[in-house]
Amino acid sequence: MNLPTFIQTLAATIINKISEISPFLRGLINQLATNSAVNVCRHRPHPWSTVHHYVSWTSLTNKQWSARHLPEKTLNPPKDGSAISDLFRRESGKARLCPKSTCLFPAFAQYLTDGFIRTRMPNTSSHEDDAIRKQNTSNHEIDLSPLYGRTEVQTKSLRCLSQEQGMKGKLKSQKLNNEEFAPFLYEESSNAYRIKSEFKVLDTPLGIDNIIHDKEKISRIFAFGGDRANTSPQIALMNTLFLREHNRLASKIETAHPDWDDERIFETARNTNIVVFIKIVIEEYINHISPIFKFHVDPSITWNASWNKPNWITTEFSLLYRWHMLIPDVMRWGKQEYSVDNTILNNAPLLDTGLKQSFVDMSSQIAGQIGAFNTAQALVKLEENAIRQGRICNLASYNDYRAYVKLPKLAFKDISKNQSVTHLLEKAYHEANDIEFYVGLFSEDVTPNSPLPRLLRTMVAVDAFSQALTNPLLSEHVWPQGPEVFSKTGWEAINQTNSLRDVANRNCGLPLSDDEFIGMTRKDWRPQWF
Amino acid sequence: MNLPTFIQTLAATIINKISEISPFLRGLINQLATNSAVNVCRHRPHPWSTVHHYVSWTSLTNKQWSARHLPEKTLNPPKDGSAISDLFRRESGKARLCPKSTCLFPAFAQYLTDGFIRTRMPNTSSHEDDAIRKQNTSNHEIDLSPLYGRTEVQTKSLRCLSQEQGMKGKLKSQKLNNEEFAPFLYEESSNAYRIKSEFKVLDTPLGIDNIIHDKEKISRIFAFGGDRANTSPQIALMNTLFLREHNRLASKIETAHPDWDDERIFETARNTNIVVFIKIVIEEYINHISPIFKFHVDPSITWNASWNKPNWITTEFSLLYRWHMLIPDVMRWGKQEYSVDNTILNNAPLLDTGLKQSFVDMSSQIAGQIGAFNTAQALVKLEENAIRQGRICNLASYNDYRAYVKLPKLAFKDISKNQSVTHLLEKAYHEANDIEFYVGLFSEDVTPNSPLPRLLRTMVAVDAFSQALTNPLLSEHVWPQGPEVFSKTGWEAINQTNSLRDVANRNCGLPLSDDEFIGMTRKDWRPQWF
Repeated sequence: MNLPTFIQTLAATIINKISEISPFLRGLINQLATNSAVNVCRHRPHPWSTVHHYVSWTSLTNKQWSARHLPEKTLNPPKDGSAISDLFRRESGKARLCPKSTCLFPAFAQYLTDGFIRTRMPNTSSHEDDAIRKQNTSNHEIDLSPLYGRTEVQTKSLRCLSQEQGMKGKLKSQKLNNEEFAPFLYEESSNAYRIKSEFKVLDTPLGIDNIIHDKEKISRIFAFGGDRANTSPQIALMNTLFLREHNRLASKIETAHPDWDDERIFETARNTNIVVFIKIVIEEYINHISPIFKFHVDPSITWNASWNKPNWITTEFSLLYRWHMLIPDVMRWGKQEYSVDNTILNNAPLLDTGLKQSFVDMSSQIAGQIGAFNTAQALVKLEENAIRQGRICNLASYNDYRAYVKLPKLAFKDISKNQSVTHLLEKAYHEANDIEFYVGLFSEDVTPNSPLPRLLRTMVAVDAFSQALTNPLLSEHVWPQGPEVFSKTGWEAINQTNSLRDVANRNCGLPLSDDEFIGMTRKDWRPQWF
Repeated sequence: MNLPTFIQTLAATIINKISEISPFLRGLINQLATNSAVNVCRHRPHPWSTVHHYVSWTSLTNKQWSARHLPEKTLNPPKDGSAISDLFRRESGKARLCPKSTCLFPAFAQYLTDGFIRTRMPNTSSHEDDAIRKQNTSNHEIDLSPLYGRTEVQTKSLRCLSQEQGMKGKLKSQKLNNEEFAPFLYEESSNAYRIKSEFKVLDTPLGIDNIIHDKEKISRIFAFGGDRANTSPQIALMNTLFLREHNRLASKIETAHPDWDDERIFETARNTNIVVFIKIVIEEYINHISPIFKFHVDPSITWNASWNKPNWITTEFSLLYRWHMLIPDVMRWGKQEYSVDNTILNNAPLLDTGLKQSFVDMSSQIAGQIGAFNTAQALVKLEENAIRQGRICNLASYNDYRAYVKLPKLAFKDISKNQSVTHLLEKAYHEANDIEFYVGLFSEDVTPNSPLPRLLRTMVAVDAFSQALTNPLLSEHVWPQGPEVFSKTGWEAINQTNSLRDVANRNCGLPLSDDEFIGMTRKDWRPQWF
């Protein structure tokens, strides 16, 4: 850190106060803060992608290959691989907890990133298929693809496509325990579960082979747009919320515009839902990550920004967003506790608990802290995959990336105050400049008042702002049309959304009682001044 | 015109002189002129496309639908359709000639636009299939797709894919009369012509059904990347030139980098060839259209320009670029004359004449003049298709588009000095504001010193600069790498190219004799001062 925590916290607090007083200054400060977050490194278009180690027409145009911030580099290999694995291992039952985040934070983070950081997954884990991980299946936009699907054919399969009154513009859904959920993906036929024919065009849920004979689990897999949206009940929770919000909007838009057809109502509800989601991304999620300063969505600041260039997910971004440490060993859903591995592809906790209580439960449990020695055993395999992916892509080193975003390169001893961490790093690598990107990212200590360490936070900010705010719905000739594009109903919903709680409020039979709370930031969190 | 021709011509001539003297002023003037050409109307991203008459996620993201400058509008239908047809008809043998352009100009224009203004063509001409014309098959970039294909699979089928010495990085070709040409697409088998199996992935040439039994023609169709690149021998001429340039570059790059593989040499030659092409687009073709002022390629002026936004071909652009009037009734190839309809899908003139003489011939024949009463009979059908396409897309009116690019709306009498034109327009439409976009565009008289009328020229400039100069190879972090991206050979080729003649020079056994000339601007053209 360049300034002591006290001064930083004080400055940000004062700036937040000024922002509250003057809308003009608020706009100006928001613009300055956003620009300074994005301007720490090179803007898009990136010259390189994972396809070639040189610039080619393919590297500049084929977005199935991930872009890259830094070109390929051959690093000195680590001297002790097992020391690296040890860095990530959490002692069972000894999760280090995050002072700021509830379990709603990782749930939202994963739901967000599953939508557009979509590493193409090999069918097997053989090394031959490793190169597949250089590719992605992303649309490179925040488009709620977990809800709507990646392709138009997928979207169609999820829609009612009905011109009947009361059904226009809606997504398919079912009532369970008097609550609205997505339809189930599988149907039983002669004692086996098969994907319903209407949903064959959807991407098959990742890892489904592991539970294909588990009747309890497979029968509750939802027909979702995204192949990762059933991965855990937290993600299914998020997707169900936005499914309900879509159908709620469609109903209200139909009432206001009885002459509109199914297509226009669907498109208008989707326009709205995507922007509602982006507002939460910036105004709750990014603000939760930001130590003190509060950002808000002002699309106009991007229209002439030199960083407003077409989105293209980078291979670095696909790695730095793997925040497995945030997941505690055990989570409570309603009255029952579930270990991490028992929540994978298991929607029972969500269905049994119901949407409102699930949100309250996720918000009252504390997330793990990002950093070393804090990955649940069930997820350590994913850390190993991530490290391997960095090697497959020949990523530059941790210190190269620090320099890239204008942070000083660090010696072993300066990476963490925890000597067990620096000791293992010294054991693993010949020199600090050999430390791999992924390993270094998660070896740093978190910064005061943020759930993330410095390099991670800096890189998240670059891509988050430059990707969320450059969404075509916020663009120069769309956003100013307001209700014309989103309908009056949609425009109101957008203006009345600053947090997940606002959307839950509209769709989960709220209000909450005094004891209840929905949020990503712990109710008991207070800024750290020293 | 706002200023008399004399003052305009004088001003542009003085500015050109100043540019010659000071490189600094040249850069500044070039930037000002480029920006002022692009800033006459709204920049991308466009809010609308042809898919919906309202803003939708599909309209903002699915580039298979063409973007649109102005939203849908219902115009008063014309009162006399036959008057409109009469406007386009050229009296046989009475082509009005262009004072400025040779036949190389339309040849290049068509080759350029076939690459990225790619209206999806219906299989039949039934009205049911008309809606297909709202779509396109474009990659929305100047990528030499007529040479390299639209897709990676197509590109692969056109490549030698050989690691043999002397073959690396090359496109397939054959020698005919000791000259290099693309391979033929068809092979004879049991008295019928079939596409060679290696080329089955290519798009079938448009209109091929009409000549499928014409052995002379079908046997000479080339295996080209583009489905329009065999349409006439002029287009095949262009594509052959860039095929040779690619293979010439690949040879030289291989010699300089014996350690590079086929892939890298191919990609580097393609990088170079695309930029060589763009240099001709701006420095010969756009400068030919520009009345007097001379532009040059300076990629840096775009990097922070607010108009540097992702390319997306508009439906208006796909119409305004149909310059059928430029084609004379008869063209000479070597010693033989061909009527327009006898050049369609006929590569014999090119093969018989050879590349160098074909360039000389195209440069010594005068193009037709754009405007009313000047479309060759064989092409009138295409005008009717264009007018129908404008109606299918519910384009706004001619005067709406004039207002859009900040030109005054015109009354009937002000559209042309030719009273036969204004008379027919008055016969066809109730009011001047009812005149359709396409009809109005081509009813205007050409402006002094340009081959195009005012509205057309203004709209061509907007899209030409904003699409050519925003090519990813000219982008902020690619272009400055120079020889790193294009190789030393490629970088030299780029710097030594300002015109088609420069490329012909390297690939057609030139130099020219005193009588010969290669260029888009007539050798005898002099600026008009009054």
